[in-house]
Amino acid sequence: MIKKLTILGLGLIGGSLARGIAQNQFADHIQGWGRRDASLITAKELGAIDSFTLDLDEALDGADVVVIATPTLIAGDMLKQVIARAATETIITDVASVKGNLLQDAKRANNGQEPSNLVLAHPIAGSEQSGISAARADLFVNHRVILTPTQQTDKDAVKVIQAMWESVGAQVLEMSVLEHDRILASTSHLPHVLAYALVDALSSDESSEDIFNFAAGGFRDFTRIASSDPTMWQEISLANRQAILESIDAFSEHLSALRTAIKNEDGDKILATFERAKVARDAFVHKSNSN
Amino acid sequence: MIKKLTILGLGLIGGSLARGIAQNQFADHIQGWGRRDASLITAKELGAIDSFTLDLDEALDGADVVVIATPTLIAGDMLKQVIARAATETIITDVASVKGNLLQDAKRANNGQEPSNLVLAHPIAGSEQSGISAARADLFVNHRVILTPTQQTDKDAVKVIQAMWESVGAQVLEMSVLEHDRILASTSHLPHVLAYALVDALSSDESSEDIFNFAAGGFRDFTRIASSDPTMWQEISLANRQAILESIDAFSEHLSALRTAIKNEDGDKILATFERAKVARDAFVHKSNSN
Repeated sequence: MIKKLTILGLGLIGGSLARGIAQNQFADHIQGWGRRDASLITAKELGAIDSFTLDLDEALDGADVVVIATPTLIAGDMLKQVIARAATETIITDVASVKGNLLQDAKRANNGQEPSNLVLAHPIAGSEQSGISAARADLFVNHRVILTPTQQTDKDAVKVIQAMWESVGAQVLEMSVLEHDRILASTSHLPHVLAYALVDALSSDESSEDIFNFAAGGFRDFTRIASSDPTMWQEISLANRQAILESIDAFSEHLSALRTAIKNEDGDKILATFERAKVARDAFVHKSNSN
Repeated sequence: MIKKLTILGLGLIGGSLARGIAQNQFADHIQGWGRRDASLITAKELGAIDSFTLDLDEALDGADVVVIATPTLIAGDMLKQVIARAATETIITDVASVKGNLLQDAKRANNGQEPSNLVLAHPIAGSEQSGISAARADLFVNHRVILTPTQQTDKDAVKVIQAMWESVGAQVLEMSVLEHDRILASTSHLPHVLAYALVDALSSDESSEDIFNFAAGGFRDFTRIASSDPTMWQEISLANRQAILESIDAFSEHLSALRTAIKNEDGDKILATFERAKVARDAFVHKSNSN
């Protein structure tokens, strides 16, 4: 149970968290903050927040927990401001897709030390929609939230953030910042880079009109993520640069091996690769269906 | 209208074509042929075919049109046998995903000449199911069928095959063998190779268990085609080897450029690439929705 909860940025994620916490009465008072009041007014009308302000100091004042839910691009700047201005007993957390860059930002804002009141968090829930109007109290039900505390993180602060996410139905796990960023690079950031690169390659082909004319259902599924928001993914690509580069390299090695097998008409090797991949993918689907 | 139609191989595609033609009464008599009688018996029970035989010469005897709908792996061998044994007035066609290798097989079986009675065809319709029990008379309705006639192909034969596919509701188009194989490499074969390579790369990572644990919906869509039949895709990879190698190379160039942009933190270039891809992909979806 939190007395004063402050959420910075009432978009899909911040708004859904606010609605979920309000519905489950996990905070006495939820205050919203944003740079413009449009989404804050909507959030108030929806009952997601109890009050709002455009003044960051007022938003941070007396907050037990501050959730940074602003867009990726400004999450680092917001974090630095919040660390500089919030009381040391205020627990600071976030919802961003990449953690390593934020941890660096936090240290820079805290004399090179990891702030003990900072609990970085990543709810793995998305939606093709965005904005406060798409926010739902049940967005996180049965979704995973990864916390990435360090040696310096206060254990009680971790417990509060864990309880907050559990109050909205999420399954909370912990891993290191490095592991988080590597895993997300592999399962999310790399696939986006590949999908964007493929569609860009095809669209620059001289026969691109014919190519897209004859693309079928499999292509549609495969390239769905290339319709994601380019700005958000540019930000993620930069924020998780190192892990993404490593993922691209690991993938490229496998693609190159497969290319060689096709070039050499090495049917056994092609088949073995495809079979391994199918087994792994079928197991993944089986497991995620039974979750 | 065809008097005697012979279909070699009563799987999903052969069976659906038979059912569609039977329902639309585009043939007086449909005869099935296969190496085993199980699917032939089912096809007969379903009313897809009027009769069947396990004897290839009997199947070809007096046929006006022979459709080779056997698995990819043996399509080339079947084609050579059919060219060697069928009467020259019998129109020969197929349903395979790759055309260049079959055209080569056909020339080899015909003293180096392209047989004038051969009309290679590729219905772009698939299903996650397979086998005669999944066959549906409407499988090809509003789906494209690509014919790849050459200079040597008899124009009347092309008209018969076009009419046959139109009788089951398909939209028939023509293009060259080379163009067909390039386009299919880009839109279908390359995405399968990439999906298999990605899943194989992730499954060989030391953290693969965690990786698959944290994969979300986007990953599921992106890797769906890596659950496709490995044997079929091994065959296609070998059959369309040259065009697939060229597609991989074009893709790899684009991926490499994107990797360099990420490495150099070139936000403008990353954003421009993602934006171009999103525009192309959204246009493709818009167009395919309005078809």
